[in-house]
Amino acid sequence: MIKNPKIAVFGGGSWATAIVKMLCENLNEVGWYMRNENAIDYIKINEHNPNYLSSAEFDVSKLLLSNDINELVNYADVLIFAIPSAFLKGELDKISENISEKIIFSAIKGIVPESGLIVGEHFHKMYQVPIENIGVITGPCHAEEVAMERLSYLTIACQDRKKARMLSKYISSDYIKTKTSDDIIGTEYAAMLKNIYAIAAGIAHGLGYGDNFQSVIMSNSIREMKRFIKKVHKMKRNINNSAYLGDLLVTGYSVFSRNRMFGNMIGKGYTVKSAMMEMSMVAEGYYAAKSAYLLNEKNGAKTPIIDAVYAVLYQHKNPKQIFKKLTEELD
Amino acid sequence: MIKNPKIAVFGGGSWATAIVKMLCENLNEVGWYMRNENAIDYIKINEHNPNYLSSAEFDVSKLLLSNDINELVNYADVLIFAIPSAFLKGELDKISENISEKIIFSAIKGIVPESGLIVGEHFHKMYQVPIENIGVITGPCHAEEVAMERLSYLTIACQDRKKARMLSKYISSDYIKTKTSDDIIGTEYAAMLKNIYAIAAGIAHGLGYGDNFQSVIMSNSIREMKRFIKKVHKMKRNINNSAYLGDLLVTGYSVFSRNRMFGNMIGKGYTVKSAMMEMSMVAEGYYAAKSAYLLNEKNGAKTPIIDAVYAVLYQHKNPKQIFKKLTEELD
Repeated sequence: MIKNPKIAVFGGGSWATAIVKMLCENLNEVGWYMRNENAIDYIKINEHNPNYLSSAEFDVSKLLLSNDINELVNYADVLIFAIPSAFLKGELDKISENISEKIIFSAIKGIVPESGLIVGEHFHKMYQVPIENIGVITGPCHAEEVAMERLSYLTIACQDRKKARMLSKYISSDYIKTKTSDDIIGTEYAAMLKNIYAIAAGIAHGLGYGDNFQSVIMSNSIREMKRFIKKVHKMKRNINNSAYLGDLLVTGYSVFSRNRMFGNMIGKGYTVKSAMMEMSMVAEGYYAAKSAYLLNEKNGAKTPIIDAVYAVLYQHKNPKQIFKKLTEELD
Repeated sequence: MIKNPKIAVFGGGSWATAIVKMLCENLNEVGWYMRNENAIDYIKINEHNPNYLSSAEFDVSKLLLSNDINELVNYADVLIFAIPSAFLKGELDKISENISEKIIFSAIKGIVPESGLIVGEHFHKMYQVPIENIGVITGPCHAEEVAMERLSYLTIACQDRKKARMLSKYISSDYIKTKTSDDIIGTEYAAMLKNIYAIAAGIAHGLGYGDNFQSVIMSNSIREMKRFIKKVHKMKRNINNSAYLGDLLVTGYSVFSRNRMFGNMIGKGYTVKSAMMEMSMVAEGYYAAKSAYLLNEKNGAKTPIIDAVYAVLYQHKNPKQIFKKLTEELD
């Protein structure tokens, strides 16, 4: 591994912006790709992202900003992707460089809709990046709290612990504590599944269930997540660690979560289509529900919550009836 | 066991009121002791408790109300106690009957301050009630949501499963689902410990920590709870079941929790004494923190969160410094 690797972040949203901020605490140069040229110009002058996390200020002399993805792929040894999964393939298609020898970290919580793969697998299968060069950055972490420099704990997972430790070092600061893990598959699935459970919590809330039931949903969700991940990749993991349970809770209990909001609208009677239009963007959990359901059809874990969300989102079943049935399956 | 046992609830607060409401869904007669004679007169006329859960209406023809504790101890085969632990001994001292042959269920989330025992142990050691006649009713459950008939899940624990099933039957209804358990010690400790963790969450909030850290506290709390309970009573239990994790979450995430509010005031700079005076009642977790700390001194589980709360509440340590140190011990 290179001693002082060059690092670039790909994405212009709030999570990408937060990661750039964390890196700037430790590095003198950080590559930052976003497709929006106007935003780049704005950042150079105003020292903050106009659209996301605008309270986070940057020392722009440290930023190597570009809307040419190949320029930054070429520049960096470590590529950190924080592009919503629905747009990832479109961005990756622009890359003409060979990326098979790069170190790739995914900060994306979802599935690549076109391949149905979690992001790490997508890079491995589609771009021949070796598994030991692929990592995951996971929460529990609202980007907004990074902007406010509120203490947050991240987990950096890579099968090659040295690479996890390397990135941990660049991410850690007064307000960011990190933990390393070698459970790249489990942490990435957890990050994806939690969005489905946040949709379920939202649907329940929209249907009028209260806080007592919310805690029952969360308690059942973490047990379901454990069963699901165990079927995908069996290894010793403590599902109550922050990267799994903490990440589930910060999303499932957040009234700002897009996934929870999306579920809430559906619980209140919006159709899936109108909820999506109303939100003007797609909640990650929408794609995740389909992929998780289909994957688990083969694996056969008991997943009543994922099944219920799938039935509502993709089989157009009545949320009230489906959740009434779900309540019989939880405990 | 008697076929149609007579049941009485002891306590006039919101949780006692909620339990009486649940029982009235299934029984034609429910004994209800409260010491406040005016409240009894009020209920008989107005069909709801004037002070707690006043939206819950009762068919008063079903209620055998009395402020004579011995009258109802004498009446009932099954005694359900829902008196705040700080007042329990004072009430029990009034009992002149022998209760060693009664079936006792505790719906109290705490420790008896005078004996330092959890409620089940207190009845066993002080009143010679056999362990198999002692049970626990536990959440996750805000009483307020029972009044609103919002779906809630309770766990009824008793080493004698038949007795747990008996009470489950009388408690269950359209809006109450129950699960039985034989982990009377674990569920009771969980119900007690969660209040300490809610105080910790409150202190953190008061000190300005955000939602990311809150999820880290909760994720660490459930792991700590597991270690603590394992030392007290080792048996096979899934700590992520609703009676443990669900109960922790419904309290730890509740802005209405007295324990969380008490912690919050301390985080904001109130002294312990002034926070107590301001709240005009003592949060259960205050006593629980001391008992849990002292018990665990002997048991030796790693409990950084309990230790931090104890240091703040009883050793008058500075919350800011103690929590700064705590953040180093969590992950």
